[in-house]
Amino acid sequence: MRIDVLTLFPEMFETPLSYSILKRAQEQNIVEIVLSNIRDFATDSYRKVDDKPYGGGAGMVMMCQPVFDCFEHVQKQSPETGRVILMSPQGQTLTHDKAVELSREKRLTLIAGRYEGFDERIRTGLGAEQISIGDYVLSGGELAAMVLIDAVVRLLDGALGDEDSAAHDSFSDGLLEYPHYTRPEEFRGMTVPEILLSGHHGNIEKWRKQQQIERTKQWRPDVYEKYLKAQQKKQDS
Amino acid sequence: MRIDVLTLFPEMFETPLSYSILKRAQEQNIVEIVLSNIRDFATDSYRKVDDKPYGGGAGMVMMCQPVFDCFEHVQKQSPETGRVILMSPQGQTLTHDKAVELSREKRLTLIAGRYEGFDERIRTGLGAEQISIGDYVLSGGELAAMVLIDAVVRLLDGALGDEDSAAHDSFSDGLLEYPHYTRPEEFRGMTVPEILLSGHHGNIEKWRKQQQIERTKQWRPDVYEKYLKAQQKKQDS
Repeated sequence: MRIDVLTLFPEMFETPLSYSILKRAQEQNIVEIVLSNIRDFATDSYRKVDDKPYGGGAGMVMMCQPVFDCFEHVQKQSPETGRVILMSPQGQTLTHDKAVELSREKRLTLIAGRYEGFDERIRTGLGAEQISIGDYVLSGGELAAMVLIDAVVRLLDGALGDEDSAAHDSFSDGLLEYPHYTRPEEFRGMTVPEILLSGHHGNIEKWRKQQQIERTKQWRPDVYEKYLKAQQKKQDS
Repeated sequence: MRIDVLTLFPEMFETPLSYSILKRAQEQNIVEIVLSNIRDFATDSYRKVDDKPYGGGAGMVMMCQPVFDCFEHVQKQSPETGRVILMSPQGQTLTHDKAVELSREKRLTLIAGRYEGFDERIRTGLGAEQISIGDYVLSGGELAAMVLIDAVVRLLDGALGDEDSAAHDSFSDGLLEYPHYTRPEEFRGMTVPEILLSGHHGNIEKWRKQQQIERTKQWRPDVYEKYLKAQQKKQDS
């Protein structure tokens, strides 16, 4: 997969992309991540990329021309067109299912904005979809782009090493995870549930599933409701 | 505000914390962000921080002792206890309202995990709440911690410069934002809506509100439903 990121702060991505799974996935050519600075495509001597909003109001708006030129510059570098995504709080919310869907693409182009937002013609003119990583506001689209990259790249074939496993991830079976315990058996008076020490795999599995259901019910009733509906649908078919 | 981050990858935070609003907020002592490496508190010669799960299963689990010791080390450095937050996909979902609530605290301690997750006794023993940034899975809690830090710090008094404004943020009035336009009036045949060039502020305001409502209805019906309920509640009281 090739991921292009169009941003005013390519340097921000440096350390998050240099560790662990993202580092390894790049080294093993599972993903190529190309960072481009939108400001390099500004045409005036101040390298201006933003301007005041028509109709008044606070803040500055990202201008069309540098973003279009930057986009066209990177599009030419690879034969795939791929999907174009504006990181924006107005977007569809990123979910595990959406990450799975995006992980099947050959190319993604992420555009990370700053200031009040993008000139609307960037979205419409580039045919971009908008994705939000959650219902909160960030200083810019960079962290959102990093989150999307991480969520997608770890799903690519070969990206996860032995210490990880995507199959048992939260949400992959529609429920939150069961609680984990590791050594020692007792830590400051807190003990490991006896069943986990029993060696009886059938009972352990049953207990874990029960824990998943109880936690999901208690902590994320919305997720539990979706789970029930999916179970019902399975039974009906 | 003081924010402690307990992590196995403190280096990952370097570049995202060194630009824009987060950089300025630290320089102006609006926030102090202290990164601690959990691995520095491992007691064996391999600097071991994880171990196999009791009851079997894939992946490794973060051990209690290094996390507890790291936590107690940083807690002593400041008189405030503050809130302790595990970054976890099992957690309550971060929202704008939650970020506002957290921005009123004097101290936050964020614990970012790796591998399959934390030993459950870390959560119960430290009295930690769990926060998730969304319903997707990341390689670790570091990017989630960065997102939470950014969403919270930009709400602190004095953190936003003139080019930004939190009052007009998405979600702050329960609706998505209206579309923005800036110069030029025409770009590749795409024009700015005439009303924005009219200079009639009353009409512009009405148009923008209308746009907010239409986009929220179309793109995020769940957000629109909440908005309607909140409006109804206001009218009733």
